[in-house]
Amino acid sequence: MERRNQKSAVSEPQGHAGNPCIMVVFGASGDLAKRKLIPALYNLAREQLMPKEFAVVGFARRGMSHEAFREKISHDIKEFATSPVDPDLWNWFVQRLYYLPGDVQDANAYQKLQSLLVEVDKERGTHGNYLYYLATEPDFFSQIIQQLSSAGLTREENNCWRRVIIEKPFGHDIESARALNREIKEVLKESQIYRIDHYLGKETVQNIMVFRFANGIFEPIWNRRYIDHVQITVAEDLGVGQRGGFYDKAGALRDMVPNHMFQLVTLTAMEPPISFEADAVRDEQVKILRAIQTLSPEEVLQYTVRGQYGEGIIGGKRVPAYRSESNVPPDSITETFVAMKLYIDNWRWANVPFYLRTGKRLPCRYRGRYSIQRAPFVLFRKTNIEQLKPNLLVLHIQPDEGISLNFGAKVPGPLVRLGTVDMEFRYKDYFGSIPSTGYERLLYDCMLGDATLFQRNDMIETGWSVVSPIQDVWKALPHRKFPNYAAGTWGPHEADDLMAKDGREWKKCQ
Amino acid sequence: MERRNQKSAVSEPQGHAGNPCIMVVFGASGDLAKRKLIPALYNLAREQLMPKEFAVVGFARRGMSHEAFREKISHDIKEFATSPVDPDLWNWFVQRLYYLPGDVQDANAYQKLQSLLVEVDKERGTHGNYLYYLATEPDFFSQIIQQLSSAGLTREENNCWRRVIIEKPFGHDIESARALNREIKEVLKESQIYRIDHYLGKETVQNIMVFRFANGIFEPIWNRRYIDHVQITVAEDLGVGQRGGFYDKAGALRDMVPNHMFQLVTLTAMEPPISFEADAVRDEQVKILRAIQTLSPEEVLQYTVRGQYGEGIIGGKRVPAYRSESNVPPDSITETFVAMKLYIDNWRWANVPFYLRTGKRLPCRYRGRYSIQRAPFVLFRKTNIEQLKPNLLVLHIQPDEGISLNFGAKVPGPLVRLGTVDMEFRYKDYFGSIPSTGYERLLYDCMLGDATLFQRNDMIETGWSVVSPIQDVWKALPHRKFPNYAAGTWGPHEADDLMAKDGREWKKCQ
Repeated sequence: MERRNQKSAVSEPQGHAGNPCIMVVFGASGDLAKRKLIPALYNLAREQLMPKEFAVVGFARRGMSHEAFREKISHDIKEFATSPVDPDLWNWFVQRLYYLPGDVQDANAYQKLQSLLVEVDKERGTHGNYLYYLATEPDFFSQIIQQLSSAGLTREENNCWRRVIIEKPFGHDIESARALNREIKEVLKESQIYRIDHYLGKETVQNIMVFRFANGIFEPIWNRRYIDHVQITVAEDLGVGQRGGFYDKAGALRDMVPNHMFQLVTLTAMEPPISFEADAVRDEQVKILRAIQTLSPEEVLQYTVRGQYGEGIIGGKRVPAYRSESNVPPDSITETFVAMKLYIDNWRWANVPFYLRTGKRLPCRYRGRYSIQRAPFVLFRKTNIEQLKPNLLVLHIQPDEGISLNFGAKVPGPLVRLGTVDMEFRYKDYFGSIPSTGYERLLYDCMLGDATLFQRNDMIETGWSVVSPIQDVWKALPHRKFPNYAAGTWGPHEADDLMAKDGREWKKCQ
Repeated sequence: MERRNQKSAVSEPQGHAGNPCIMVVFGASGDLAKRKLIPALYNLAREQLMPKEFAVVGFARRGMSHEAFREKISHDIKEFATSPVDPDLWNWFVQRLYYLPGDVQDANAYQKLQSLLVEVDKERGTHGNYLYYLATEPDFFSQIIQQLSSAGLTREENNCWRRVIIEKPFGHDIESARALNREIKEVLKESQIYRIDHYLGKETVQNIMVFRFANGIFEPIWNRRYIDHVQITVAEDLGVGQRGGFYDKAGALRDMVPNHMFQLVTLTAMEPPISFEADAVRDEQVKILRAIQTLSPEEVLQYTVRGQYGEGIIGGKRVPAYRSESNVPPDSITETFVAMKLYIDNWRWANVPFYLRTGKRLPCRYRGRYSIQRAPFVLFRKTNIEQLKPNLLVLHIQPDEGISLNFGAKVPGPLVRLGTVDMEFRYKDYFGSIPSTGYERLLYDCMLGDATLFQRNDMIETGWSVVSPIQDVWKALPHRKFPNYAAGTWGPHEADDLMAKDGREWKKCQ
């Protein structure tokens, strides 16, 4: 096992720390802050990528002193840290936490925030740079930004910067996304806006670009001439849990497709950008979204599949139907599964179908399986090998991050028999397990002003415009037979039919 | 570890057994018979690929009865079987062994052989098919074939076949190879001649063809546009052992290059054959050999390197110099190491150098390492990634049979750093260890009349004609500074210089 567990040769020295700043977390008492944001900031400090001049201001409704906030966070970190916490470092870190109780709808609160920021800025030497993280309900996004602006907190002057990270969902359809963009752009420049999709914080997603453009071996075959089709599966074995109220308004299509799924599609399909600067990359991504064939109502019925889970068995345990989840109406017609076929109308991808599927209560957790196959040659026709399998390139995003290439090899023995084997690379074999929340890179990039991994307004809007015709048809013709798949299965049979009609099949997620 | 150790999907049912025949082994009391041939035949029987109508006749000088021969072989198999011997099957097998004492230079012995074959043929129902295996000193090859012919034992009539497997070396230069071919072709048709190179019995060598032509993903990049160079290393940590007398007359160039090394070169470089029938494949192989640029005397000095090992340390043990090995003259100028650079003058490979090296007493055993790399793109120029490594495709032939593809991946963490990692496939993960001598496939193919993995006369002669100019220059200008590398090192520094001059380097064999 010599070659395994070998440390890879790393070509780069350690980077610089992020720029000095105060990060204000709206919704600081919520789940996201304690589970992800604080552990991610701590990890950045551990990696020495956190500026020395740094502070966090938590903002939430609940009354609490700075000290009480620090105690709460010190308590939470024990549960949510991704690796053992170093007491000295934590002590340094926790001194830089502050708290402001207030209502995001109350203008006075922003005045108090303004005063507190001036004070902390002075104390911590953060150069007047503020990073606002909106981890609240989506309904408040626009209002918070307007209020920050009225309080003078979004003005970039004297070389300081003010940036806003906005959590998804960014709108719930093309109109609401446009409206939200319009509202926030009244007071912010596009360069101040960081629309986050934490999915892009995942190593393997980021690695798609490196994989494609740092390796000369793959790009020559990355086109319609060699690729038969692309399939992307993002599966979740969980149900909606406590998010029933939110989820029932969203559904699988809105929740996953214009953001997560389209990120994977665009990173897979885009042309090489002229550089890896944010706008160069995003220009290419938008071009892909614009090139996606818009579906006619007839095509929506033909090329998309929706599903809602009924009760079933997962991991040996009986789980309830979607309509029995808490805060879900018993006659809900919200979809928890979606599959579709898309075409990208450009020179590289003409006639190569992209099949997407995502859903809840599927047999296993499989975020971002993504595979590419090629039609086989038939040169072996005169031997006793008749069935050549197509090659399959799989990028495993979670769990078991890695890449595998499925190919034909000779089965040892005197006969020429062909076996299908995998050539595999696994992150953990080279880099150990990855103690990361997925937010580190995104927060760090934002501190440095690198928006490559954030969504630009035109990406969001173009994404919604692709999804819009589907939303319209589905709304006009509600599905009459929900639930139509049992929890613990791979969705309704129509999703398999979608592939089978084309003589293809979904690859098993193992 | 779900995906590992998975049985691969095998596309083919079991094959037919070989054709009924008697195999006559000349040199039956030698090493090759007991170590390789008999265990290989037994393995074929175990795999049910041995015809039921089968027998072996051992022929050697030593006086022995059939029974004594069976006892000897039954004793030897205990040591050389590649897996536990099944007593019932062995019993069946051993009943089919016969022995004839005689001198290969004695015409009478062939008369006796003729009688014995008729008798055994009757007893075992072998349809008059005879397979002669020449496992003797090369000097006797021609004579044995002449004698077989005189005794009427090479005539193919009444639908029976007579085939001859000739061990390497086939000649020691272009003239002697031509002479040998001429002599044996006076009495045999080319279709009766099976020039064996047991290296082709190795699974991974056979797999080169499957790998290239059963997988659409590799062929598009298999040309000068994407491949920077090819390097092939066949290393041996052993010295010449008891073979000093033979080896000193041959040397590394003759012993390895026109056969083993050129097989690897041609399988790597050849165009897709129109089918996998023997002559279709060998036609393509010969085309490559013909396309190898012949070296001028000046180029021989520039593009080839020879070495002879001095004493040194391998595996912590001091080992003697080549000139101190038994049966080696103390002033021998025979090379035990050779490295060279070749060009193949065709459309696919123009200007792509092929670097070969092979030698004895190198740091480890590494038969047939073979790698392909591609010049990198530099799209990452504007990021903080500056050093992109070229991709490296490695076919490991022995030990640790498998294929690995070295590529760039993102090192996990908030910074974009590039690591070099391997995507790997190992035979043993899929197929377990391979209980094989390497001769099974070759013997089986010969019984079926499939000569794909054997060398045709034009391959042999063209191979020698490539090597000839090197032999001539080396002979005219003997090396004056042997020994020039210490046992346990990777040969003389000139071998490294050969690559370094071109800005390349030998990849480490791990």
